[in-house]
Amino acid sequence: MRKCKIGIIGFGTVGKGIYRILKSKYDVHPILKDIEIVGIAVKDINKKRDIDLDNNLLINDPYELIDDPTVDVIVEVMGGINIAKDIILKSLKARKSVVTANKAVIARYGREIYSVAAKYGVYVLTEAAVCGGIPIIEPLKRSLKSNQINKMVGIINGTTNFILTKMTNEKADYKETLKLAQELGFAEFDPTADVQGYDAADKISILTELAFGGKINRDAISTEGINKIDIKDIEYANKLGFEIKLLAFSERNKVNKEDSLSLNIWVAPSLIPKSHPLATVDGVNNAILIEAYPLGTIMLYGPGAGSGPTAASVVSDILNLKASSPENTSSIDPLLSFNFWRECHIINFDQISKKNYLRIICLDTPGVIGKIGDIFGKNDVSIESIVQLDVREEKAEIVVITHEVSNGKFEKSKDEINSLSEVELIASQLSCI
Amino acid sequence: MRKCKIGIIGFGTVGKGIYRILKSKYDVHPILKDIEIVGIAVKDINKKRDIDLDNNLLINDPYELIDDPTVDVIVEVMGGINIAKDIILKSLKARKSVVTANKAVIARYGREIYSVAAKYGVYVLTEAAVCGGIPIIEPLKRSLKSNQINKMVGIINGTTNFILTKMTNEKADYKETLKLAQELGFAEFDPTADVQGYDAADKISILTELAFGGKINRDAISTEGINKIDIKDIEYANKLGFEIKLLAFSERNKVNKEDSLSLNIWVAPSLIPKSHPLATVDGVNNAILIEAYPLGTIMLYGPGAGSGPTAASVVSDILNLKASSPENTSSIDPLLSFNFWRECHIINFDQISKKNYLRIICLDTPGVIGKIGDIFGKNDVSIESIVQLDVREEKAEIVVITHEVSNGKFEKSKDEINSLSEVELIASQLSCI
Repeated sequence: MRKCKIGIIGFGTVGKGIYRILKSKYDVHPILKDIEIVGIAVKDINKKRDIDLDNNLLINDPYELIDDPTVDVIVEVMGGINIAKDIILKSLKARKSVVTANKAVIARYGREIYSVAAKYGVYVLTEAAVCGGIPIIEPLKRSLKSNQINKMVGIINGTTNFILTKMTNEKADYKETLKLAQELGFAEFDPTADVQGYDAADKISILTELAFGGKINRDAISTEGINKIDIKDIEYANKLGFEIKLLAFSERNKVNKEDSLSLNIWVAPSLIPKSHPLATVDGVNNAILIEAYPLGTIMLYGPGAGSGPTAASVVSDILNLKASSPENTSSIDPLLSFNFWRECHIINFDQISKKNYLRIICLDTPGVIGKIGDIFGKNDVSIESIVQLDVREEKAEIVVITHEVSNGKFEKSKDEINSLSEVELIASQLSCI
Repeated sequence: MRKCKIGIIGFGTVGKGIYRILKSKYDVHPILKDIEIVGIAVKDINKKRDIDLDNNLLINDPYELIDDPTVDVIVEVMGGINIAKDIILKSLKARKSVVTANKAVIARYGREIYSVAAKYGVYVLTEAAVCGGIPIIEPLKRSLKSNQINKMVGIINGTTNFILTKMTNEKADYKETLKLAQELGFAEFDPTADVQGYDAADKISILTELAFGGKINRDAISTEGINKIDIKDIEYANKLGFEIKLLAFSERNKVNKEDSLSLNIWVAPSLIPKSHPLATVDGVNNAILIEAYPLGTIMLYGPGAGSGPTAASVVSDILNLKASSPENTSSIDPLLSFNFWRECHIINFDQISKKNYLRIICLDTPGVIGKIGDIFGKNDVSIESIVQLDVREEKAEIVVITHEVSNGKFEKSKDEINSLSEVELIASQLSCI
């Protein structure tokens, strides 16, 4: 059988993981022997590397691999945005399929990338871009294809889940835990993309496109990070029977007259009942709950990042390419490839409907709970619970959990509560499921 | 695009589910419109059916569909063993791919069926045969293919999980709960295959073949059902921090000189620590935990049975067939098809190694715990805990949980304990993970 010849671009954690899988002698399906590395493009050939490597494979110029007629597949694991995007597009135009772990590029330029791949009759596979080693892209493309997907809720960022788990278990504050995560290698030196929720927004954008079939304007996703989470919120949530997790949420809203599907999408730190399957997903693990018809609810759980899991997803994608590309034919597998099949749009922030948690610091005077309750009632916001949890120095902390309500009504209530003379501060606001 | 024409054989719960998916107008990928039902073979055409059906599709003779040159794919959802096997083999020999939900046939005759499919250049797809709607066959064939699978542990029978969940939550006894399950349609009139563990053994046999690559002698799988579970065992397990679930277990043991892989496989009611991800899988849900290298541990969770989930898996398999069978080529996707790539064998019962739970009824005399402990010690069985839990009418109940030990050593200890004069009865024995 003809070998599948690959060029790897980038040789960081994931690149090395791929090399290790392909060179290792552990006990796997024989098809793995049919993959051959032609070259590995790196910035600095002479850099000392902690891996036993055939140095002849290293080259400087990634475009050499793209131009090499013996290369069948380009594996882009260099990261970054602009150069990676250029490499992906040039590879596709050279009629080479691409396997990439680059969620940032796919979330931003998926439309262009998918359509160039289709035009040139090749594939772009992205299993490693979302949730590391969990099979999620492939099931959305194939195993779940007979279903109408209705909702996806996931813990899809390992760094923030590690931080929130540590904060919960050790009652440690946010800054201290972030520092620990950085020391342990679970958070990057610049943690912005993770802790602000941008990485989760990239991923839910990619998953939404695959599940619902339309282009998503990634920049329109309402995104809150975990950087404002106070240890107090975690304590109160636990006391009330919830865990706090950074959730990515995407739900079918309705099909509009012009057949465009509107979607309810957000990323936010959220209270989850302790009995919910997502509540026990701890540390750097990820999990996605998918509600579909007629399937029902499934959950896919596993390691969300790391060299081994991510590299395993990349190599499985390469195997899929090899298996789905018979010789002597240029036909394309319509499930493995991906094209948008409808219009989708994200509903406005005001229309997004969810449950909310609000922590209010106010004067410890009688009647304040009543006033807060009145404001919510007047704005048609139904309340699940309202609890006074802490009184210190004549100040009280009140926690409100609402039933599902539109952001519009909720924000109006919040403004009115904020202007009550007894209210000192709305200390925090979280989502709930 | 050319339509994929299917013949459905059998029109029970799953068959009707398939029909509903293909005729419904809910919001799915447009590729679903490319599947056309040519005919449905049923025993009795005139039977009254609770479904809005084009009666012209019904025929009596399944072999007519197999002989029909316009049919591309045979969907076998009739159940049973001998006739179903004949239909599957004849379909393959007529160069029609087969989609089946029939775990009993695949577990028993997989080798013959896979090889006939390969010989005639067609596929046999089985996603619906294991764990209803959970994507597990497809991930084992594709998304996890870059890994060395090391272990699979699953709750893969919905009926027994429903019964055990009810027994646990409502402190109800086995017979009473089985009767309720039958009334609710969660257990069959003859529940033998489910409650004795045979159905779970069928499924773990199929999964093991796909994961480890060798033929399994299904009849050699050590299989215990839930029919001897006493409500007392559930109470004691709960008290000690465990849930009881019927587990199917399959683990890489070692590669032998002749390159044959030995496997540790069993089906048995088992104690699971409450913190274990499988412990919260309740009711008719199923879940499978897979440990693989370099991936790590993933879990796939969802509805293990039912018309909708099972039919969704069947239809996804049909879509996969359509997507992977380009016109003008007879090449076969080596991942979607399946062939054994190595020898596997199940280790002897005596060599199987696991943790055990033992409930012993004995006289309430001093020293009996010591004697039991001595016997285990002498036989090199390490004990995790030994607890006296109930004393009534001069009789005591002692529960022992061992560390991992070979069945050989454990059974020898058990025999010696049974012959102690103070021991009245070994009331029950369960596995632990």
